[in-house]
Amino acid sequence: MDDNTVLIGTKPLMNYVLAVVTQFNTGVPEVVIKARGKAIVRAVDTAEVATRQFLPGVTKKSISTSTDAIETDDGLSNISSIEIVLQKL
Amino acid sequence: MDDNTVLIGTKPLMNYVLAVVTQFNTGVPEVVIKARGKAIVRAVDTAEVATRQFLPGVTKKSISTSTDAIETDDGLSNISSIEIVLQKL
Repeated sequence: MDDNTVLIGTKPLMNYVLAVVTQFNTGVPEVVIKARGKAIVRAVDTAEVATRQFLPGVTKKSISTSTDAIETDDGLSNISSIEIVLQKL
Repeated sequence: MDDNTVLIGTKPLMNYVLAVVTQFNTGVPEVVIKARGKAIVRAVDTAEVATRQFLPGVTKKSISTSTDAIETDDGLSNISSIEIVLQKL
């Protein structure tokens, strides 16, 4: 399942859009886009641009959010995360 | 329906969490959190903090994303938006 996951970081948006398109071109039926914190915006942008401009047969299957505990210099801290599942129809 | 909507902007997170809690305290069964662009992260944070720390009987009913066309100095531009519906059980 990890092969189908695109983890969003700080690179330019189109890098992630291309990663999603490439995943679908390998023939997988679903691609999962994951992000935490500030990268959540880029995850939403990735899903929107990929489905609207590059993958006409792909739709958003589900979107979920959660809270992860991460270790920082000041101890444990909570950070929001998002998971967007794209599905080829 | 607009009364139940909390539009996320650039204020501190807790302002929006308080707005969501206040809405539910008026007795409405659902509150809609909306945001565009960079505010999307704060919308997710608002939903997570409100449901986890302040509203134990409230869950995320649905999360959807879309693309809005907005007017900028350079003409029309696309911006991602998110809509999170919270529901009192």
